[in-house]
Amino acid sequence: MRIKLCLEYDGTNYSGWQWQANQDTIQARIEAALERLFGESIRVQGAGRTDAGVHARGQVAAFSAPARFAADEIYRALNALLPDDIVVRDAAEVADNFDPRRDARSRAYEYHVSSRLPPSPFEYRYCWTIKEPLDQSAMNAAAHLFIGEHDFAAFRSLGSEEKTTVRHVHASEWQGDGARLIYRVEANSFMRHMVRTMVATMVEVGRGKAAIEVVPRLLAERDRAQAPAAAPARGLFLMRVCY
Amino acid sequence: MRIKLCLEYDGTNYSGWQWQANQDTIQARIEAALERLFGESIRVQGAGRTDAGVHARGQVAAFSAPARFAADEIYRALNALLPDDIVVRDAAEVADNFDPRRDARSRAYEYHVSSRLPPSPFEYRYCWTIKEPLDQSAMNAAAHLFIGEHDFAAFRSLGSEEKTTVRHVHASEWQGDGARLIYRVEANSFMRHMVRTMVATMVEVGRGKAAIEVVPRLLAERDRAQAPAAAPARGLFLMRVCY
Repeated sequence: MRIKLCLEYDGTNYSGWQWQANQDTIQARIEAALERLFGESIRVQGAGRTDAGVHARGQVAAFSAPARFAADEIYRALNALLPDDIVVRDAAEVADNFDPRRDARSRAYEYHVSSRLPPSPFEYRYCWTIKEPLDQSAMNAAAHLFIGEHDFAAFRSLGSEEKTTVRHVHASEWQGDGARLIYRVEANSFMRHMVRTMVATMVEVGRGKAAIEVVPRLLAERDRAQAPAAAPARGLFLMRVCY
Repeated sequence: MRIKLCLEYDGTNYSGWQWQANQDTIQARIEAALERLFGESIRVQGAGRTDAGVHARGQVAAFSAPARFAADEIYRALNALLPDDIVVRDAAEVADNFDPRRDARSRAYEYHVSSRLPPSPFEYRYCWTIKEPLDQSAMNAAAHLFIGEHDFAAFRSLGSEEKTTVRHVHASEWQGDGARLIYRVEANSFMRHMVRTMVATMVEVGRGKAAIEVVPRLLAERDRAQAPAAAPARGLFLMRVCY
């Protein structure tokens, strides 16, 4: 039996999605809960490998297990066994060959920027606080230049190895009211640090430290060293994965 | 020099406002930051003694210290020295005899109830999750019966010693949309567990386990044992203190 999970988590206290030796990760927590439930080791695949501190409102994962429980029982059992900051929103039986990563047609992320100073004690885990005034229309103009098919080699994390660095961005826009700006981006897939490096680049534009033309230049020159350091993980949310 | 502070904090990780031996409290954290800043022990008075797990968006506190820093410098220094979940919103010089507790004319609290299941990983620290459907209009009718001057002896925590258990409630109302109900209450002052016991009583009404008449009966009979256990601390916010 193959089960697809829709997951929400607060990434603050975890070393990201992916299993790592001696690290507390989301995947390790879910696999530990599944092992308790089924009495055997079960491997979970995730649609996106969120980094340490990154949150999810709609991560998708899947695993294969003996057909001992109905999907609804797995949903309730996992929520009973998982910590409060990792939540299963839905569990459903899917085809045996469902692959949450390869079958995904697109992913959507949000990045939250706040100008509130001092940062709110209720929100500091979920946004990047920026003191300087930001030119939202310049940031939006820069955001629109990411839409379409481009080579994002300059926006991946150093050391990541991908077959291709070309991605298709379907949506890229800043919304909000000054105190809280939200960047919404959707693409066929993302490389490690890609959204956070795009955000850091647009924030430089918003601060007036770079012109809008930095975006086409980085896309054309493909040089990671020319792009700014990735924006902080805590502002990033994986919102949904579409199939 | 006497300084009035307006404070915001996430109470999740603290044993409440009040200093206690070997406990991590908000007051202890602020006094530790002031001791680092001034190089001497400084005692802080708070307007309200929020319990363990209770949050504040507008706690008021005051302390007396040598006139070495301007209020704005204290504001910035304290925010630099305090942890991210305790925030100074404002610091201002006040009269030497300002007493944040005795001078307060009223306090306002909010209590948040959520019906979202499973609880959101981003909100579980800040609300009481109730599975059963709640009759909001019955809860509001019960809330309105608290308005005015009443003896709240049945709604205080056992063991609390107060000169009088009579309080004047200025506002008492539920608002929201079903998924998230917010109770707003304002009174001249509150006793320990008073809001949380009022909320627990109204939730029994909302669940249909008690009739609206439970409110005047508890107010008249003054018997703590007849009222339900206090609602969880995590849903409660001290919103403001008025002078």
